[in-house]
Amino acid sequence: MTNNIKAYGASSAQANLEPMTIARRDLKATDVDIDILYCGVCHSDIHTARNDWKSTTYPVVPGHEIVGRVKAVGADVTKFKEGDLVGVGCLVDSCQTCPSCAQDLEQFCQNDKTYTYNSVDKHLGGQTYGGYSTSIVCSEAFVLKVPENIDPKGAAPLLCAGITTWSPLRHWNVKKGDKVGVVGLGGLGHMGVKFANALGAHVVMITTSPSKAADAEALGAHEVLISTDTEAMKAHANSFDFILNTIPVGHEMDPYLSLLGLDATMVLVGAIESMKPFHGGNLVLGRKRVAGSLIGGIKETQEMLDFCGEHNIVSDVETINITDINEAYERVLKNDVKYRFVIDMASLK
Amino acid sequence: MTNNIKAYGASSAQANLEPMTIARRDLKATDVDIDILYCGVCHSDIHTARNDWKSTTYPVVPGHEIVGRVKAVGADVTKFKEGDLVGVGCLVDSCQTCPSCAQDLEQFCQNDKTYTYNSVDKHLGGQTYGGYSTSIVCSEAFVLKVPENIDPKGAAPLLCAGITTWSPLRHWNVKKGDKVGVVGLGGLGHMGVKFANALGAHVVMITTSPSKAADAEALGAHEVLISTDTEAMKAHANSFDFILNTIPVGHEMDPYLSLLGLDATMVLVGAIESMKPFHGGNLVLGRKRVAGSLIGGIKETQEMLDFCGEHNIVSDVETINITDINEAYERVLKNDVKYRFVIDMASLK
Repeated sequence: MTNNIKAYGASSAQANLEPMTIARRDLKATDVDIDILYCGVCHSDIHTARNDWKSTTYPVVPGHEIVGRVKAVGADVTKFKEGDLVGVGCLVDSCQTCPSCAQDLEQFCQNDKTYTYNSVDKHLGGQTYGGYSTSIVCSEAFVLKVPENIDPKGAAPLLCAGITTWSPLRHWNVKKGDKVGVVGLGGLGHMGVKFANALGAHVVMITTSPSKAADAEALGAHEVLISTDTEAMKAHANSFDFILNTIPVGHEMDPYLSLLGLDATMVLVGAIESMKPFHGGNLVLGRKRVAGSLIGGIKETQEMLDFCGEHNIVSDVETINITDINEAYERVLKNDVKYRFVIDMASLK
Repeated sequence: MTNNIKAYGASSAQANLEPMTIARRDLKATDVDIDILYCGVCHSDIHTARNDWKSTTYPVVPGHEIVGRVKAVGADVTKFKEGDLVGVGCLVDSCQTCPSCAQDLEQFCQNDKTYTYNSVDKHLGGQTYGGYSTSIVCSEAFVLKVPENIDPKGAAPLLCAGITTWSPLRHWNVKKGDKVGVVGLGGLGHMGVKFANALGAHVVMITTSPSKAADAEALGAHEVLISTDTEAMKAHANSFDFILNTIPVGHEMDPYLSLLGLDATMVLVGAIESMKPFHGGNLVLGRKRVAGSLIGGIKETQEMLDFCGEHNIVSDVETINITDINEAYERVLKNDVKYRFVIDMASLK
């Protein structure tokens, strides 16, 4: 059985997003039915809506930075009750049995993980639809508790931009006193600055834009390094313990690799694209590393949200109505947002 | 004071190597004077002789895979005595005080490390001259003990090719049962196969050349994976714990990255060159890593030599006379050597 609900999505790669009706499954025993309050606008939404990755099935309803309130729970749900403030991120299911899932790394599930949108729907057939909609039904294992003391609008981007930056900072053990660079000041980068600061690191915003210096410092950066300033880059050579690279497109890594210290790591979280050539010597001399990181597991996402509750951390957002979504996409592509659009889903109801 | 000794080197980028006379310093209190028996021919020798890296000062005497016998020791030398079988690798000095040196990582000395050739000579001025010579004077801190039970010819390449492959296998903790790929079957790769096998790993030789299969297995590979065989590459996707990449030139990493398992690392040891573009998604999906590694520290080099003594491991070599060196260079460039040329230095005396 299904219920039809209101949503907003794209019917083809060329189309603007527009109102549509989609099916949601009836509540199963382990399901949580969530009334969506806010949904963040992630760059991946745009890539998917426009089929940039050649993997989109239409119609598609994007949205994987979902915050809402529990409307109803299935008979076997133990962790949530009606009225709870909750979130859903990029994943709504995984096999729960493979070695990755057994390590709480559902994002690397080796079998059939289910993304929140544009992924095979194991319950209804067809595909999953995301958070640009009035409600979502999700297995409780993939629902997160959102601390009641943080602004739910600012919490929405934590479900993707937040965990995407939190996970590598934790996995590579960034700690008090480390010198941490954050490259790129967008939806991901601004969360990276906030988290690295809260973890006690000495945070250096690395950017091409001197105009971003004041904003970066307001977000928690202790220094700003302009990557086009050759002398400044030289002064910081071989000195970083860790670099979080949030640039969302392919780019030259060499200038950033030269900043890493002995045995230090730069992690790519944004560039799911072809990178420009780099010089092997920039890894060999200093035993440096480049790694990738992908969102985070459910357990780690909950830890991040709890940390945000304790440290009162949310994303800086600009709230929009659902009818503003097409204009918002254009502005995201121009990097014209500080730092994340969040859709007030009351505007769809 | 200095002594003039016989050597073989290049007087310009275009020149063949030929006999020359060079100065060696008189023995200082902490120095060891070594009568050179054998010197391996490393690809770096060719790069330097031909100024491929634009950093050569002429005349240059290459050679940093040196095995010999102690002829004399300075008054304060404690670790060596006349007649000991010893080795000298890529380094003959470092500051010994910086954080890298304090960690026994002299190869990453942050001050003024001295390479065995083509490096500023702190004692005589001018530059250091390498092992294509009858003798070398070296501070005891940079002299290695070579186990008497292994063939000194085969031991010479351990000083560079050996430690270059040993160090990453140890640093990334390759252990019994790990699935380890070795890419490229040359001077470095054949040592990687031997070491990974001796460490208990399941060793897969990854090569473009089916003709190398039998040799790889004889060296200790348990499997051979032909990297141009799409189906075989798919069957091994996401399954390796570690890949040692010895390709000596810039290349496409994507096929090898696709072989790495979750959180696994590929280490570049040969390509001190511009790499071809790779896809960021190949690191992000699986939290994979690419790192570099450079030779090894003195302590680790001694550990490697001791391990070779215990496991009777040496390099497979083809012995040449010094007058064959120019032809040997041409053959190295055609990968026509199994697997390392070693100069019998008696031919120079």
